[in-house]
Amino acid sequence: MESTTEKPFGVHDIREAAARLTAYVVRTPLLSSPVLDAEVGGRILIKAECLQITGSFKFRGALNTLLSLTSKECASGVAAYSAGNHGQGVAAAAAMFGCPSVIVMPDTAPRIKVEGCRWWGAEVVFYDPRRQDRDQVIGAIARERGTVVIPPFDDHRVMAGQGTVGLELAEQLAEKGVRPDAVLVPCSGGGLSAGVTAAVVARYPDAAIHVVEPAGMAKMARSLVTGRPEARDPRRVTIMDGLSGPRVGRRPLTALRAYAVCGLEVTDEEAMRGMAAAFAHLKLVLEPAGAAALAAVLADRIDVRDRTVAVIASGGNVDPSVFARALGVT
Amino acid sequence: MESTTEKPFGVHDIREAAARLTAYVVRTPLLSSPVLDAEVGGRILIKAECLQITGSFKFRGALNTLLSLTSKECASGVAAYSAGNHGQGVAAAAAMFGCPSVIVMPDTAPRIKVEGCRWWGAEVVFYDPRRQDRDQVIGAIARERGTVVIPPFDDHRVMAGQGTVGLELAEQLAEKGVRPDAVLVPCSGGGLSAGVTAAVVARYPDAAIHVVEPAGMAKMARSLVTGRPEARDPRRVTIMDGLSGPRVGRRPLTALRAYAVCGLEVTDEEAMRGMAAAFAHLKLVLEPAGAAALAAVLADRIDVRDRTVAVIASGGNVDPSVFARALGVT
Repeated sequence: MESTTEKPFGVHDIREAAARLTAYVVRTPLLSSPVLDAEVGGRILIKAECLQITGSFKFRGALNTLLSLTSKECASGVAAYSAGNHGQGVAAAAAMFGCPSVIVMPDTAPRIKVEGCRWWGAEVVFYDPRRQDRDQVIGAIARERGTVVIPPFDDHRVMAGQGTVGLELAEQLAEKGVRPDAVLVPCSGGGLSAGVTAAVVARYPDAAIHVVEPAGMAKMARSLVTGRPEARDPRRVTIMDGLSGPRVGRRPLTALRAYAVCGLEVTDEEAMRGMAAAFAHLKLVLEPAGAAALAAVLADRIDVRDRTVAVIASGGNVDPSVFARALGVT
Repeated sequence: MESTTEKPFGVHDIREAAARLTAYVVRTPLLSSPVLDAEVGGRILIKAECLQITGSFKFRGALNTLLSLTSKECASGVAAYSAGNHGQGVAAAAAMFGCPSVIVMPDTAPRIKVEGCRWWGAEVVFYDPRRQDRDQVIGAIARERGTVVIPPFDDHRVMAGQGTVGLELAEQLAEKGVRPDAVLVPCSGGGLSAGVTAAVVARYPDAAIHVVEPAGMAKMARSLVTGRPEARDPRRVTIMDGLSGPRVGRRPLTALRAYAVCGLEVTDEEAMRGMAAAFAHLKLVLEPAGAAALAAVLADRIDVRDRTVAVIASGGNVDPSVFARALGVT
């Protein structure tokens, strides 16, 4: 049920977030590769959000939310549950403002993401995603310690922060004098997708928006059909750990339903080919989820011949062994 | 011997090159990592030139030289000898202007660099660096085909093109309101070092300039002492293939001698640690030579405590197997 008191999410939220965040975030570059362009017969522009502080876009939403807290709330600390990147984003944002943080992570989280949270001074609490409910775990911590929970996606402040990726993308496209035919965004809970979509469509209403999900785990595509926040099949696994959350968010779904958004799927194999392409032709380190949108283009999921597509390369936190495997070295 | 008719090289050459190149080159971002800053107790700013077209700074000098040719010269084609990155730079610049190119490479060049040249349509001619003289090989080709040779570093047009890296760096430092205490540049023939030094010192005369060379192969540091273009010990090998040229250039040396430039050395092991740090904390793919300047800082070759240092991350063309080895995965 949509709360009747909450204002609808829109590009104004994102513009306000951008004004707040500009002094703290990296304006990540929009890159391209003649080799990749030739391979698809079109033009691919890659928003390199892996170059963001903490190695992913998650820092933006976390910081925007943290900046909305009172100093008393900040002093009591913040908590977050996360497969990894949201945790690092929250931990970094909290550290910058001297605010304690506790991050609840599945015990399967990549080591690089666990270490990232700890490096920023966060306390990491593990849970077993096969036996424990993360909402209960974090709820107990929040009650016990009086901390504010920063949600990973189902929150307008978080969505607005992530949307600043799309605002920058739209500006950078305009600076290059380019109109995008399509924009592809990796999607799990939907915070990034909802924010980027609102920001891009405000400037380029004709751009086709695609959310990219792991094959067989397209919970957002299904939610867009049913109109309800759908869960993913819990028995499936994917190398794209950043896209493996259990359920989409109600608010991101509501925001995305205002647009004609299409779903695309990529396999683990394709995501790894995207990582290898980013290594060879862009000199970027992408994690599997971060390569999903690029992978969808390279796997011909949409026709980009003679077209211009922008893809969000959302993060680069990947363990060396997984990266080496994607490069075909093991 | 210095030619008496040649005007001295200076920042005006670089400013002219920047005006010519701006429409074609990537203004590569100046990145940083809180983790690396904390590790050294200072501030490291990384000029990510691996994100340049062809994956290295070499495209700048090649294009600046190509743009100085007459259309008749261009139609006859260009030739270059290269361990790899200069070849790719020349091949790409030539392809953009419909000019044929032939690249002479050692048969030990990394495959990714050979393929890069060919991708741009260049003809690749291999030579055996242990038995053949590359100047003779390329001289024969140039005479036979009437092509113009684009030198890798001993040329003011090339030095000016590479110097645009330093011009951008100086601008980006100013945009951040930061004065660099030191600037570190990987150095082989000296084209990049000479250009970056002239550009940076014009704006920041107090910045300490360091050229970084492979341990035991510090031909530029030696040349700065003797005043003559020195050769390296031909029996030594290094993983930093981009820094393994046989001799420094006369013109770069002349330009560098006008400044108080110091030499630093890094081992192969240290370069690989630099690559691993760039992977983990910057999400950048660096080749061994491209990581040399960052490696020098991380290996405590200079004292950066409470200081700000800028390092040029000059390129990212590295074979997957070498990259995996640097990450400790083999």
